[in-house]
Amino acid sequence: MPVTRTQAVLNGERLALTRTLSQVENNTPEGNQILEELFPHTGNAHLIGVTGAPGTGKSTLVNQLAFDYRHPPEGTKPPTVAIVAIDPSSPFSGGALLGDRVRMQDLAGDPGVFVRSMASRGSLGGLASTTAGLVQVFDAAGFDIILIETVGAGQAEVEIASLAHTTIVVEAPGLGDEIQTFKAGILEIADILVVNKADKPGADNALRALRNMLSLTQPEKNVVMHHGKMMSTEEAPAGDAEPDQEWVPPVLPTTATTGDGVAELIEQIAAHQQHLKTSGGWILREQARLKNEVGNLLQEALHQRWNSSIPPADYEKVLDQVVSRQISPRRAVDKLIKGAGL
Amino acid sequence: MPVTRTQAVLNGERLALTRTLSQVENNTPEGNQILEELFPHTGNAHLIGVTGAPGTGKSTLVNQLAFDYRHPPEGTKPPTVAIVAIDPSSPFSGGALLGDRVRMQDLAGDPGVFVRSMASRGSLGGLASTTAGLVQVFDAAGFDIILIETVGAGQAEVEIASLAHTTIVVEAPGLGDEIQTFKAGILEIADILVVNKADKPGADNALRALRNMLSLTQPEKNVVMHHGKMMSTEEAPAGDAEPDQEWVPPVLPTTATTGDGVAELIEQIAAHQQHLKTSGGWILREQARLKNEVGNLLQEALHQRWNSSIPPADYEKVLDQVVSRQISPRRAVDKLIKGAGL
Repeated sequence: MPVTRTQAVLNGERLALTRTLSQVENNTPEGNQILEELFPHTGNAHLIGVTGAPGTGKSTLVNQLAFDYRHPPEGTKPPTVAIVAIDPSSPFSGGALLGDRVRMQDLAGDPGVFVRSMASRGSLGGLASTTAGLVQVFDAAGFDIILIETVGAGQAEVEIASLAHTTIVVEAPGLGDEIQTFKAGILEIADILVVNKADKPGADNALRALRNMLSLTQPEKNVVMHHGKMMSTEEAPAGDAEPDQEWVPPVLPTTATTGDGVAELIEQIAAHQQHLKTSGGWILREQARLKNEVGNLLQEALHQRWNSSIPPADYEKVLDQVVSRQISPRRAVDKLIKGAGL
Repeated sequence: MPVTRTQAVLNGERLALTRTLSQVENNTPEGNQILEELFPHTGNAHLIGVTGAPGTGKSTLVNQLAFDYRHPPEGTKPPTVAIVAIDPSSPFSGGALLGDRVRMQDLAGDPGVFVRSMASRGSLGGLASTTAGLVQVFDAAGFDIILIETVGAGQAEVEIASLAHTTIVVEAPGLGDEIQTFKAGILEIADILVVNKADKPGADNALRALRNMLSLTQPEKNVVMHHGKMMSTEEAPAGDAEPDQEWVPPVLPTTATTGDGVAELIEQIAAHQQHLKTSGGWILREQARLKNEVGNLLQEALHQRWNSSIPPADYEKVLDQVVSRQISPRRAVDKLIKGAGL
């Protein structure tokens, strides 16, 4: 009896893995079927999101993390590592391809590493659920560490960060960085903050600015919602507060090009995992992550159902009425939903 | 007979305008009703999107644009200007509030200027349709120029750029800027490129890099789809190509803090509007913009309908099954949609 594709993925066979990843990315029925069979085997990997503005050296840092994971101290078994690199806003596939090529040089030939890049222009919800699918394939295939790399510092990254257990926000010294982090609001999602390119001028300033900013926002994190009322953690009854509230995000310098600081980063990632597991935060994040995925898939499914239920000509007709300002966009939506008999 | 709120907005009364903007932002039934009544009066304003990475001085540039619009050469009637500033990723309202305060100093007391900031964390689709609503209110109220400012350089900005007739992408000299633009892929959406902070070192390099990059991507823009086949514009039959394909985005230096270059930017904005109007591109963008808005509203409406049709307890139960890995996220969506009887 031949080994099924699902079994081959579970066995970690690279060819089966590659094919399955493509099918999940293209959202084929076969891909969905395999995902279905793989799902009960997921939940073992540590999912690590790495995000930050372009130009911070994030890709190099992700490479170096993978390399260091694969070369632990003598006598330790190295974890297997998958990298999912997402560039949600790039209409040029060049970015992702180039990324792959650079990575090849460092990590090529290591069977314990697998790199997958996505340069998609799909909707954000669609992108997030495709990424969730790819991560599940790697998880089921037995990869211990899954690094999810996203470019940018906007809403996309905040959404994609919700795919991870541990989120690393990468900064670099230079023009307006402190403002960047603040404005982008990604401090709130960071479990670990990294100032990469720490050998460049201004790195100390960036480290200091981030630490100051954290100390300013920290008090807010001690305020919890209790029966819809804001109160400090001191006032709130025990057991009511979010379990992982006591984690204070460390701020670490790294120089990805030389590898300086990457070992310490790996230590802090492990410490964060440990913290999540002992505090109960791990389960909470699993729940939030899967709830988010169901929400994304649901939106897609509802939209698809609707799409297939209305003739394109009717849709165009209603749009024409909007463009000629006979009816408003909101009225158009009412008409379209009623027209589809939903 | 008292003047209705809608009529008061159409008359440009500031108090009515402020209240309506709040109701549109909060998506109240009254807000939707007024939008409905205002919609036939829209379509006159020039909608100008201003986007780019944080730290490029975008807000200052937008202020200066408004100021210059309001102080044209002697003998010219100044257009009225509305500013809609969106920071989709900021969980801190501070950013937007600060922005307002800075603006006040320059533009306060000028009845021909109206500034509205939004620091929302809503979903991207929701944010885009709220923004579209605010823009419609200003448009109906008779503002000639509507500046839509977005922070960041990701998918959010690409989506929000689709709200404008003319999209300005702002860069600044400094760390990895050339790469930033390329990676973020926003070159493709730019009608005008600006290197702000042109008095800073590296500005010439940034200008050169952007011009080079444009000359590299330009040939691609001359390839059009013809009956599903890619062909160059020379091969394609006349009248078949996208009408605004010949617009080559100018690359301009500005120093927003001193106002240098802003007059030239205003000239180019006017030139782009002229180009759109003569080439037919204006209508195409109107269609794309409204189609996009209908799509966003539709997704929200479908999701809301579904949300109100299923008891929360049932939703939680299905989610629990996913978290315990009894069923996959995709199976959960099937169950939820069937359960709601949709």
